[in-house]
Amino acid sequence: MNFRMIGRIISFILIVEAIFMLPGMLLCAFGGQSWSAISFLISIAIILAFATGLWLITRKAPKGFFSRDGLVCVGLSWITMSVFGALPFYISHEIPSYIDSLFEIASGFSTTGASILNDVESLSKGILLWRSTSHWLGGMGVLVFLLALVPISGRNDGFTMHLLRAESPGPDVGKLVPRMKQTAIILYGLYILLTVLDFIFLVIGKMPVFDAVCIAIGTAGTGGFGVLNTSIGSYSPYIQTVCTVFMFLFGVNFTCYYLLFCGKIKNVLKDEELHWYLGIAFVCITVITISVRHLYPTFGDTLRHSAFQVGSLLSSTGFSTTDFDIWPALPKAILFSLMFIGASAGSTGGGFKVGRALMAAKIMRRNVRQILYPQRVEVVRMNGRVVDENVLRNTNAYLCTYIIIIIVSFLVVSLDDFTTATNLTAVVSCFNNMGPGLEGIGPTLNYSGYSVLSKIVLIFDMLAGRLEIFPILVLFSRSAWKRR
Amino acid sequence: MNFRMIGRIISFILIVEAIFMLPGMLLCAFGGQSWSAISFLISIAIILAFATGLWLITRKAPKGFFSRDGLVCVGLSWITMSVFGALPFYISHEIPSYIDSLFEIASGFSTTGASILNDVESLSKGILLWRSTSHWLGGMGVLVFLLALVPISGRNDGFTMHLLRAESPGPDVGKLVPRMKQTAIILYGLYILLTVLDFIFLVIGKMPVFDAVCIAIGTAGTGGFGVLNTSIGSYSPYIQTVCTVFMFLFGVNFTCYYLLFCGKIKNVLKDEELHWYLGIAFVCITVITISVRHLYPTFGDTLRHSAFQVGSLLSSTGFSTTDFDIWPALPKAILFSLMFIGASAGSTGGGFKVGRALMAAKIMRRNVRQILYPQRVEVVRMNGRVVDENVLRNTNAYLCTYIIIIIVSFLVVSLDDFTTATNLTAVVSCFNNMGPGLEGIGPTLNYSGYSVLSKIVLIFDMLAGRLEIFPILVLFSRSAWKRR
Repeated sequence: MNFRMIGRIISFILIVEAIFMLPGMLLCAFGGQSWSAISFLISIAIILAFATGLWLITRKAPKGFFSRDGLVCVGLSWITMSVFGALPFYISHEIPSYIDSLFEIASGFSTTGASILNDVESLSKGILLWRSTSHWLGGMGVLVFLLALVPISGRNDGFTMHLLRAESPGPDVGKLVPRMKQTAIILYGLYILLTVLDFIFLVIGKMPVFDAVCIAIGTAGTGGFGVLNTSIGSYSPYIQTVCTVFMFLFGVNFTCYYLLFCGKIKNVLKDEELHWYLGIAFVCITVITISVRHLYPTFGDTLRHSAFQVGSLLSSTGFSTTDFDIWPALPKAILFSLMFIGASAGSTGGGFKVGRALMAAKIMRRNVRQILYPQRVEVVRMNGRVVDENVLRNTNAYLCTYIIIIIVSFLVVSLDDFTTATNLTAVVSCFNNMGPGLEGIGPTLNYSGYSVLSKIVLIFDMLAGRLEIFPILVLFSRSAWKRR
Repeated sequence: MNFRMIGRIISFILIVEAIFMLPGMLLCAFGGQSWSAISFLISIAIILAFATGLWLITRKAPKGFFSRDGLVCVGLSWITMSVFGALPFYISHEIPSYIDSLFEIASGFSTTGASILNDVESLSKGILLWRSTSHWLGGMGVLVFLLALVPISGRNDGFTMHLLRAESPGPDVGKLVPRMKQTAIILYGLYILLTVLDFIFLVIGKMPVFDAVCIAIGTAGTGGFGVLNTSIGSYSPYIQTVCTVFMFLFGVNFTCYYLLFCGKIKNVLKDEELHWYLGIAFVCITVITISVRHLYPTFGDTLRHSAFQVGSLLSSTGFSTTDFDIWPALPKAILFSLMFIGASAGSTGGGFKVGRALMAAKIMRRNVRQILYPQRVEVVRMNGRVVDENVLRNTNAYLCTYIIIIIVSFLVVSLDDFTTATNLTAVVSCFNNMGPGLEGIGPTLNYSGYSVLSKIVLIFDMLAGRLEIFPILVLFSRSAWKRR
């Protein structure tokens, strides 16, 4: 491992983190919450001190940087970021326990939106803003951000690619343009554009500016932290509709937007993952609307709540407008299944990804055909092109790993004596970066009841889920810690 | 497809089925339940008439018989067997609805042991015997039985192999001896031997002979149908211990017994799947014993109940001695996870199989290594030998299919408004051929509350689970119905 280079990158990331804490600090300072403002200042000071120390001891890093260095770097970066990102919560005592603070910020960076807070509204605005900012940074990825903006001393394209690949979700991360750095800039450009659009639409609906900022960046990262105890439930139907639309938009592969931007509409319309993403959304909204029709006064209300909840869980955001835990079994089963599927590859959303699920279905179909006609050579196609066997093998290994982690986490979390559905959905929801689950952690409840051990497991699940497991998993492999 | 040959084999199977109904009929006749005896007679007559008709129209079958013919044959045989096997229940009116009768017999043949009966004790003894007999036939497989005993007009070894492979569980069904027919005979020999041993040990414990027959054949098939409403709960601790031991024994790969028989003890001791099977059992029993210690008067009771329940679910039998639905979350989570894992490959048990789970874990480990060192060639080994990439690919495809079927079934079953845990464990339990689940279908409850649609889905799951999915799944493929 090129630990010097990794340390160097982490020091840069910590500086980015400190910069993103500034708005929260200023808001506290101007809002008169001086202790919270000072907490931010202390946190920033600690972070900068650590970053400087790291920077100083990692000078003269060797040049070689391989795919495994990229993975370890991304894994360590996110853990470091979370460890330090929890400081403002903890120092300000707005979240009295450090493990709770860590849970909250890991939930933020991983865009999960699972919270341990009983009363969100009691937090100061600056802290709320930092909480939602973590979604925005985590959504597109902090390394992608770093690579888009900061010129790290003339590194080559491979270096950038290894980091980008390790941090970006999806089975097959491609370049949009020949150079990786440009790809990162385009992605962040689109991301900022969509976030600003969301913000404008929310403000048009007379949402307070502070709320609109938090909700817009929380939606952009498909996070789910709100600023009110009712999540999005107490805003107007217009605002709920805007949120629904943008949740769906942020769950789409950003490559589609880039292609649209370049006028290649045909390619977008042909995208199989997009078809399935929209198809799943349409079917789920229709079935849920029919199933919960009797619970709401008008058809419009029913449709709005159905679409919102489907958008929220399919994109892995986790906002809610109604307590879906009181819905009948079928809509709950649909929402539970949506938690697994998650958003599209290359979006800011979490979960197993529609593209991977589609590939799993195609692998199944191929196997049936191959059993019937063993002599034929069957291939798997996506968007008309043959999928490389290596990608299929990785998808399979991903599925194995995904299931093993869910089962093991579920067993550990079950040490806390909640119901089976509570424990199972807690793990599934955190691992797929949703936020709410069913029963004991339904949309009106939170994770505060879990023990420290369970919270640590769930923090692992959230980060592993966001980074698609391997950047975190390799840290447990002995060979990742060998010096070259 | 060689439909003539398939029809011919099905006609033989129906005759075997009719023969196995005779003991039940005699028991009813001598027990004075004349209507039940007559119901058996009518059923046997219908079956024989159908079998004869089928036999007459399928004469002059072409010789060619491929692996796909084997699959379709096994799938169709098991469906036909279930359709006719339900007749005694239905005609005798001991189970008034045909779909319930079908559920009960499919649960029997698939060795699931899930029941729709509120009061098992109200059934006549002959019907109870037929119910348990279906477990025994389904356990080792009716086609294996047929191939072991009946010489179907000088067929070649490939023919036998295709059928045996399609019906036997496990990722890699091998021959014990060069000829497949001999393999089938050895398997059934061991099966009968173990069943008789179980019966003797039960009778020594002063269990009534009728009960001992039903429980022995139910254990042998890892089925789970009992003859009392309390399952095994009201028998003596000695009997419960005998059941525990034999449940574990029937969950072991029968190849191990054959090797023991041949004196190759070393090979058995080196078997990785066996290590994991015993290791999982040991860990689960230990953890559960600690977790439920406060619920039972003595340590011995606690250990007995823990071992029984673990043995029951790990071997996919489904007997119970206590209502584990009232246990704390951790033991319930362990039992839920055991439902997925299931018994060993090549045993009479169901589930995903320990061997496959082990392979999935190895695939995960290989992927982590390959990510760290992409230039190295990593292989997966089992018992010291390199596993063929095709077997790995099939394991992966099996996992994809397994998960897709669970999700789809769960969604359909959720149309019935039970709790999430009830619906999820119903599907998982039936698909993995366990029997009981949690909450609404806990060990003291049953499946009678489900709608006809859900029952049909669960019947599909039970048969698909027993036959390891593909023999049932290919029936849904258009190309399976093409004439050659």
